[in-house]
Amino acid sequence: MERFTVTYRIVADDDHDAAARADAIALEDTVEIPRDVVPKGYVEDVILGRVEDVTPTGDAVWSARIAYHIDSVGHDLAQLLNVILGNASILRGVKAVDLTPDAALRARFPGARFGAAGVRALTGRSTGGFVCPVIKPQGTSSDSLAQLCYLTAVAGADIVKEDHGLAGQDAAPFRERVTACAAAVARANAERQEKGDQTQALYFPNISGPAHKIHDNARYARDAGADGLLIIPGLYGFDAMNQLAQDDELDLPIMAHPSHLGPYVLSPDHGYGHGMLFGQLMRLAGADISVFPNHGGRFGFSVEECDAIVADCRDPSGVGPAILPSPGGGMSVERLPDMQRQYGADCVYLLGGSLLRAGDGIGDVIRDMRRALTP
Amino acid sequence: MERFTVTYRIVADDDHDAAARADAIALEDTVEIPRDVVPKGYVEDVILGRVEDVTPTGDAVWSARIAYHIDSVGHDLAQLLNVILGNASILRGVKAVDLTPDAALRARFPGARFGAAGVRALTGRSTGGFVCPVIKPQGTSSDSLAQLCYLTAVAGADIVKEDHGLAGQDAAPFRERVTACAAAVARANAERQEKGDQTQALYFPNISGPAHKIHDNARYARDAGADGLLIIPGLYGFDAMNQLAQDDELDLPIMAHPSHLGPYVLSPDHGYGHGMLFGQLMRLAGADISVFPNHGGRFGFSVEECDAIVADCRDPSGVGPAILPSPGGGMSVERLPDMQRQYGADCVYLLGGSLLRAGDGIGDVIRDMRRALTP
Repeated sequence: MERFTVTYRIVADDDHDAAARADAIALEDTVEIPRDVVPKGYVEDVILGRVEDVTPTGDAVWSARIAYHIDSVGHDLAQLLNVILGNASILRGVKAVDLTPDAALRARFPGARFGAAGVRALTGRSTGGFVCPVIKPQGTSSDSLAQLCYLTAVAGADIVKEDHGLAGQDAAPFRERVTACAAAVARANAERQEKGDQTQALYFPNISGPAHKIHDNARYARDAGADGLLIIPGLYGFDAMNQLAQDDELDLPIMAHPSHLGPYVLSPDHGYGHGMLFGQLMRLAGADISVFPNHGGRFGFSVEECDAIVADCRDPSGVGPAILPSPGGGMSVERLPDMQRQYGADCVYLLGGSLLRAGDGIGDVIRDMRRALTP
Repeated sequence: MERFTVTYRIVADDDHDAAARADAIALEDTVEIPRDVVPKGYVEDVILGRVEDVTPTGDAVWSARIAYHIDSVGHDLAQLLNVILGNASILRGVKAVDLTPDAALRARFPGARFGAAGVRALTGRSTGGFVCPVIKPQGTSSDSLAQLCYLTAVAGADIVKEDHGLAGQDAAPFRERVTACAAAVARANAERQEKGDQTQALYFPNISGPAHKIHDNARYARDAGADGLLIIPGLYGFDAMNQLAQDDELDLPIMAHPSHLGPYVLSPDHGYGHGMLFGQLMRLAGADISVFPNHGGRFGFSVEECDAIVADCRDPSGVGPAILPSPGGGMSVERLPDMQRQYGADCVYLLGGSLLRAGDGIGDVIRDMRRALTP
C-alpha cells in the first residue's frame, strides 16, 4: 500500500521516549484518539499514520519517518497540513523537516501551474536572473504607485511586484490601484516592444480583501490586465493560494509572500524546516515563485537555510515543476554579483526599499540590476 | 490621533539595540522601506507605526509598545495581522504579546457575534459549564459518526463538536456526514424536549473543503441543520473565520480549533503570547469559543498560559463580547472537578478520545460530565 512520508525532527529523552513520541504524532495527526480505542480494520490499517523509522541523529534529537495514506487526507490541502503537522504543531519538540510524496498525493495536489520554465517563457527572458522591483509604500496614491510600475517596467524589469502591505487601504483601493498599475505596465511593455525588446514585464498585484472574496479579486485583477498574483499563504492559508493556482480560467502564475510565517521556521524545535516550508510546501500549494528573506539582510536566515530553500524549490523529485526562489529583504544592487553566484539564473531577485532611494534615477537602478544579471 | 497599540517582547543587547529593533518593527510592518526614504506627510505621519515606549523587563528582554493607525490596516483582517506581526514574525527575538484596540479597530472588526452569553442562550443551559463531546475518528462512516452524535446529544451534551480532522474524506463526505449528524442531533433534541428538558445540544460540524468553497460549505451546513461552525484559522486563515462570523445570513456561533497554530506560541522569542493568540486574536477574528490544549494533557501548555488565555477570552476591555474558552486534549471525567475550579462555568469542556473508550456506556460518561459541571 503506497503512502507519502513525513520526516520529523523529535526532541526526546531516549530511544524509548523517541519511539513513543513518534507513535503519538502518528495518532495525533490522523485519528486523534488513544491507541487502544483505534477501531480495527480500515481505520487502523489505512487511516492511522504508520511509524516507519526512528533514528537518533544528535544530542537528544531523533529523526522519525511516518507514512500516511491519502485516505486520511481526502481532497483538501488544509487537511493535508492537518495530517503533516496539525495538532502535532502544538507538541513540544516536534518539527516537520521533509515530505516525500507518493503518486496519490501528486495526483491530488499537482503543484505549480507554470514553474520556473513557465514563468521564464511568460517574460520572454531566455537567459539570466529576473529583475523584480517591489512597488511601495502603502499610503501612496494609486497614481504614484502606477508611476513606479511604469518607471521600473520601462527600464527593463521582468516582474513588477506589489508590496504585500498594499491591501486595499483607502489611499489606494484594490480595484483602482490594480487597474492603474496594470495599465502602466502595459504602456511600458508597449514602449519596450516598439524598441524591439523581446521581453516584457509581468505585473503581480497583491491579492487581498475579505477571505471569501480572494478568488473574485484575483479574477478582477486578471481582467484588469494582471499577469500574475501575489498572495500571502501565512494569512490567507495555503489552500487559498492553491485554489488560485489550480484555477484553469485564471491561468496565472503565483508568487508566495512569507509574511506571518516566521514562527514556523525560527525555532529549531517547532514548525517546519526552511526547505520544507519555503520549498516543498510552497510548491505543493501551487506557488511558481517563493519569496523568502535572504541571509545578510534584516532577517536572520543563514546561508545554509537559504540554500536548503533553493534546493527544495528545484528538487526534481518534488511535487510539480521546479519553481523560482526569490530572495529579498534589504537587498541592494551591490550585493547582486554575490547573490547571483549563490542563486544562479532561475531566481527572482527582489529590490524593494533601496529602490526608492534612487528617486528620479530609479530606472538606472533597474538597468544596473539588469546588467548585473545578464550573462 | 487615535491609534491601536501592540506590545512586543523584544530580545536585544542593550537599550540602544532595543530601541532600534522597535523602530525596525514599526517600519517593517507598515511601510517596509528604510526610514530615510519614508515620504513626508501622510505616509510618515499616519501610516508609519509609532514607537510609544521601550522598557527593559528582564535579562536581555525589553517591552516595546507600538501604535498603529487604522489607515495602515484598511478593511481587511489579514492586513491587520500584517501590521501586528507580518514581516516582523520573521525577525529574530520579536514576539507580540498584547493588543489594545482603539475605537476605529473595534468599528471595523466587531469580534464575536454571540459571545459567551449568546452561546449560553442558544443552549438554554442557564448555569454550569458546557459538556462538549468530540465526534471521531475519521475513517468512520457518516452513519457511525451520526450515531455518536445521537448518543452524546440525547445523554445531555450541550455542544456536539466534530473532530477537526473530519474534512470530507471519502469515508464520510462533507455533505452526507453533516446531513446525517444534524438529523441525529435534531432527533436527540426532540427526545430531550419530550422529556421536558429545557436545554438542547448544538451541532458544530467542521467546516472544510477548498478555501474558496468554505463559505458555501458553511451555508450548506446551516441549511442542513448545523447550529454552529468549527473552523481551523491556522489552516484557512483568521479572516476566513471572521467572514463566517460576520455573515448576517449565516448567523451561527463559531468555534476555533488550534490546529497548526503551535509554532506561534511555543517559542518564548517568536510569534504571539498565549493570551494574545487564543484570547485576543480569536475574539477579534469572530470566534465565540476558543479551543486550546489544557495543561496536563498531551500538550505542553502551563497552568499560567492557560489562565492567560482564559483571562483574554473574558477581558471586558477586549474586542466584542467575552467568549468561551474551551480546554481539551487528553481530558477525562476524573479531571473535571479540578478543571471547573480553574475555568468556572463559562467554559466549554471538551471530551474526545477517552469518550470512545466507554463504548456502549458513552451516554453514562456524558451524564457523569453533566453532573460534575452542574452547580
